[in-house]
Amino acid sequence: MENKIISNIKTLGIDMINNAGSGHPGIVLGAAPIIYSIYANHINVNVNDPKWINRDRFIMSAGHGSALLYATLYMAGYNISLDDLKKFRKIGSKTPGHPEYGVTPGVDMSTGPLGQGIASAVGMALASKLLNNKYKFKKNNSFESSRSLIDYRVYVLCGDGDLMEGVSYEAASLAGNLNLDNLIVLYDSNNISLDGDTSNTFTENVLERFKSMGWHTDLVKNGNSVKDIDRAIDKAKRSNKPSLIQVKTVIGKGSVLEGTNKVHGKCLDKEDIDNIKGKLLLPNEPFYVDDSLVSQFRAKISKRSSIKYEIFSRNYNEYVNTYLNGDNSSLKYLFNDEIKVDLFNHDWNLDYEEKEATRVSNGYILNELTKFIPNLVGGSADLSSSTNTYLKDCGDIKDGHYEGKNIWFGVREHAMGSILNGLALSSFRVFGSTFLVFSDYLKPAIRLSALMNLPVTYIFTHDSVNIGQDGPTHQPIEHLSSLRSIPNFDVYRPADKKEIIGCYQSILNNNRPSALVLSRNEVTMLETTNMEETLKGAYIVRKEVSNLHGIIIATGSEVHIAYHIAYELYEHNGIDLRVISMPSMEVFEKQGEEYKNSLIPIGYKTFVIEAGSSSCWYKYVYNENYLITIDKFGTSGTKDEVLEYCNFSYNQIRDRIKKLLK
Amino acid sequence: MENKIISNIKTLGIDMINNAGSGHPGIVLGAAPIIYSIYANHINVNVNDPKWINRDRFIMSAGHGSALLYATLYMAGYNISLDDLKKFRKIGSKTPGHPEYGVTPGVDMSTGPLGQGIASAVGMALASKLLNNKYKFKKNNSFESSRSLIDYRVYVLCGDGDLMEGVSYEAASLAGNLNLDNLIVLYDSNNISLDGDTSNTFTENVLERFKSMGWHTDLVKNGNSVKDIDRAIDKAKRSNKPSLIQVKTVIGKGSVLEGTNKVHGKCLDKEDIDNIKGKLLLPNEPFYVDDSLVSQFRAKISKRSSIKYEIFSRNYNEYVNTYLNGDNSSLKYLFNDEIKVDLFNHDWNLDYEEKEATRVSNGYILNELTKFIPNLVGGSADLSSSTNTYLKDCGDIKDGHYEGKNIWFGVREHAMGSILNGLALSSFRVFGSTFLVFSDYLKPAIRLSALMNLPVTYIFTHDSVNIGQDGPTHQPIEHLSSLRSIPNFDVYRPADKKEIIGCYQSILNNNRPSALVLSRNEVTMLETTNMEETLKGAYIVRKEVSNLHGIIIATGSEVHIAYHIAYELYEHNGIDLRVISMPSMEVFEKQGEEYKNSLIPIGYKTFVIEAGSSSCWYKYVYNENYLITIDKFGTSGTKDEVLEYCNFSYNQIRDRIKKLLK
Repeated sequence: MENKIISNIKTLGIDMINNAGSGHPGIVLGAAPIIYSIYANHINVNVNDPKWINRDRFIMSAGHGSALLYATLYMAGYNISLDDLKKFRKIGSKTPGHPEYGVTPGVDMSTGPLGQGIASAVGMALASKLLNNKYKFKKNNSFESSRSLIDYRVYVLCGDGDLMEGVSYEAASLAGNLNLDNLIVLYDSNNISLDGDTSNTFTENVLERFKSMGWHTDLVKNGNSVKDIDRAIDKAKRSNKPSLIQVKTVIGKGSVLEGTNKVHGKCLDKEDIDNIKGKLLLPNEPFYVDDSLVSQFRAKISKRSSIKYEIFSRNYNEYVNTYLNGDNSSLKYLFNDEIKVDLFNHDWNLDYEEKEATRVSNGYILNELTKFIPNLVGGSADLSSSTNTYLKDCGDIKDGHYEGKNIWFGVREHAMGSILNGLALSSFRVFGSTFLVFSDYLKPAIRLSALMNLPVTYIFTHDSVNIGQDGPTHQPIEHLSSLRSIPNFDVYRPADKKEIIGCYQSILNNNRPSALVLSRNEVTMLETTNMEETLKGAYIVRKEVSNLHGIIIATGSEVHIAYHIAYELYEHNGIDLRVISMPSMEVFEKQGEEYKNSLIPIGYKTFVIEAGSSSCWYKYVYNENYLITIDKFGTSGTKDEVLEYCNFSYNQIRDRIKKLLK
Repeated sequence: MENKIISNIKTLGIDMINNAGSGHPGIVLGAAPIIYSIYANHINVNVNDPKWINRDRFIMSAGHGSALLYATLYMAGYNISLDDLKKFRKIGSKTPGHPEYGVTPGVDMSTGPLGQGIASAVGMALASKLLNNKYKFKKNNSFESSRSLIDYRVYVLCGDGDLMEGVSYEAASLAGNLNLDNLIVLYDSNNISLDGDTSNTFTENVLERFKSMGWHTDLVKNGNSVKDIDRAIDKAKRSNKPSLIQVKTVIGKGSVLEGTNKVHGKCLDKEDIDNIKGKLLLPNEPFYVDDSLVSQFRAKISKRSSIKYEIFSRNYNEYVNTYLNGDNSSLKYLFNDEIKVDLFNHDWNLDYEEKEATRVSNGYILNELTKFIPNLVGGSADLSSSTNTYLKDCGDIKDGHYEGKNIWFGVREHAMGSILNGLALSSFRVFGSTFLVFSDYLKPAIRLSALMNLPVTYIFTHDSVNIGQDGPTHQPIEHLSSLRSIPNFDVYRPADKKEIIGCYQSILNNNRPSALVLSRNEVTMLETTNMEETLKGAYIVRKEVSNLHGIIIATGSEVHIAYHIAYELYEHNGIDLRVISMPSMEVFEKQGEEYKNSLIPIGYKTFVIEAGSSSCWYKYVYNENYLITIDKFGTSGTKDEVLEYCNFSYNQIRDRIKKLLK
């Protein structure tokens, strides 16, 4: 029976690919027994409640295995029809070319860019640990084992490509450090990658490598033996370490192209498909399904999972009644219900005398935010001493200590991003910090935050050349423009403490991916900056006194420069300027045309001051002469020397504006 | 004597940091014996000829160790004065905050962003292997060992941070696969990273990990014992594998803060410095140098290295005379002399009937280029079957087989970029390919190509949403804007085969970092595209017939759409449009104002058509209505479905232009 179900998954998968005219048959034919083993014999899910909070997660890290995944999810009884399978890779279908979060029931994240799935799975496994710790039942006696509302496992199917990617190493190393024993990775090891034999590129001993990182490892020599796979998964479940199971498979098994890279990513021809179906003893008819097999498969999954599901329901009620007096409102966030916060009626200790870097102000605010957001966790890629994002009274998250809120990511920016995605997919509000210039290291993870619309907040400090002495490798130039070009992603660069609070009000209530970009240099608070106005993305911080001679748009610490230049030019030269602070271009662009036009009316000379690339700013100015920006690499020197070098000192900027307004 | 030299390096380093007011004393005090061992006893360099082609390379991958490096280079006799050391971190000095390529004699690459140094060192070691193979002397008899012009080694000093970065794993795994036994990495293992103890984050067994990747590994328990370090390096030299030597050190040794993260990146206070100097038995005087120590250190280096240097000179003359008839012109590229090529007088098999994706055209051209450029090597991150960048008759580069030109990078985009940088720093013209959407994975390496002005060509195919079915994870949107925002980096997006040739003419003769962005969809050649005109970055492919009603700027395959729309609108609607192909915005922006204004005269309605983010295009249009671009994520579907979804079908674009020209 088992083999028949696997065969039917295979034939559905290759029919889908054939019908779509593109796709990846190699993994369908090679790895079907692995995914079968997981679903038939291990994973606890409820196909009728695919968002069940305590479900085991399954991540198809080899996202090109989408056909295999969808065929399995269909067979498993998720709300996916045969018709949906026939629409594989067609627009608007439940079955897109690569798995997409939010599109297909049973798909727990978008995958495709290699390495991301396994890395985010580490975040999901960590989330399970954190929730497990948080929602533990008190023991009645010391013999009772600890029971918790949440105790799900995370299963991953990955391939050679995933493991070659640096981000998977980073995440796996951290998973070992944190000892995430609820993470089970099945490695579809077929000795083939897209371009050919892995002997050309990937000859390391993967199991030894994972062992060196503190993982339990195992080898299944016969990837067609569900029994062997099951046995390895059972051992992994009992292990007190994260597990990697290398399963030796044959890519495209049964095809005339089996065992070669030719079967990886192209449709099989008709004759080949007919032969494969023949060997699998299944009829030639496209999208053939043996309903009795489907029933048996579904029964296996449901029989096991329904027990877990019921236990969870009982536990949930008991937990709410015992510990929460019957009021489950504090558990809302678990179910990804959006939390609304009002930060404006809080005492933020505003002090107009103080001079402080916005990274420092943010450190204070972030610590206060823990009072508003129960599910806030975050950390830094080994720069919390510089980015100021440590949550002081919240404790550290470490192996065996999951009660803290501070994650120590190590010097692993990329894995930080991917792990944050995994946490955000698992009921957490998260942040991660590093220097703005190193946002490059986690670009692929940021893109996935945006694509999945996850409420991840990236905190990037040291936001311009004015960091000075560390030199051009540490001085961001293109990064603001680059981040702003990502679709569905909001970049915030607040001018002072009040604007930071406004930015968080926007970030937290909008539940969207964002970057908060902060300075190392100190600023005072401006009288005219405003929390509420920050919600509009841009607003006036200095209104012209009588005649509008020109407009300056600025962001972050440059708002202060703009403000003081406007003041000086008015006092000394009678030039009457409007100064606009634009903490978020994206938020501003979403405002109504009326507001936008009233703020930046057409026909006035408009300047932009930002210590970064001009690239994204042309939309507001007449021509490049009005862009006071930096389009070359910086240099190593004191802050003032570097600003001068970049034509960006106060005097240089003032004189340039004065000249253009003559 | 040895210890005294080390002590003097230490005191110079901390004086530099103190004098600059910032820097990283921890590594200076901790790792000085390691760098001393390398320079005093192993590395073959000529301080008077720092660009000597067969010098051993030293890469300070832990770039924050710049003070340690500069102090050592000064002591070693490079053209760096005490005065230069006093200018540490000051503008315009030879001693910037992090090592910068081209600024300091003896500095072989810019480092600072962690992981990049060690990853590029893999490229340098590979370069040595390739050159070694190419410039071998023929054996006179089978007993003679093989002699070559080039046989340099690459030494790296790295820290925990470097090894936590995914890019270092990727590169190290490939170094093991290629068995680069000329690479020796010294791992300054001090159990501390910026934020604290590495036990918080990095508890893997690093030596076992490297062993699993095919490296020789060794442990030096006492990082103060030069003898032990020497012995380990000697063993590494004899090993036939790449070597990682873990040297246990104490960060900030001798400081009151020794062994803690507090000594990593902040100036020491005066009292501490005084005490350290006392312990080191050196006078308190700032920038004290014991000239006799300097002489002894220099003598050690020169005594050993001068032999190697002389052998090289003899070998060089012998090689030129024996194999090249006394004509060394074919060796010019070795010395990074710029090579000029003329691609315009070659028969490129141009066929106006053929329909072909530009990735395919490029595959053909790239193969032809091997005839023009002797030092061309490159490869793909496991996508050469899709990017079409395989050099067909050139063979593969593999362990023990270094005569080929094709590098198999595996699914390691980031390491590919860093390794390309290393090869470009070592006399090679290089390219690396992947999909445009995955350019995100190698962003930090691209930035370093740009910062060091290295002639690396990144080939990015599958350049827009029109790849269709693979869906949004594989469809680039923001990438062109993002790449164009990098300073000193040229992005080329040619419209057809002729423009590709023009792009290469520009790329190869300008010796600069660049990206070549290519389509998966097929295009025919336009009659009016032009190789020579491509050198201007933009030019007219359809001139208005009589009255200029508007201008369309387009790039890549969108040039064809623009061209045909212009044709149709003229024939059917009497609308007379100019169409400009802009294969490179950066190159165009460097042209004179007169040309730029003649091409895009002010006062005409100007459209941009590009299947990517609008972000970088505002400079050419009146407002966003004229930007026919894509600012949201794509979707999975057929090419035509996806284009329609993005308002980017031929008809949608034509109608929009027509409407705006009414």
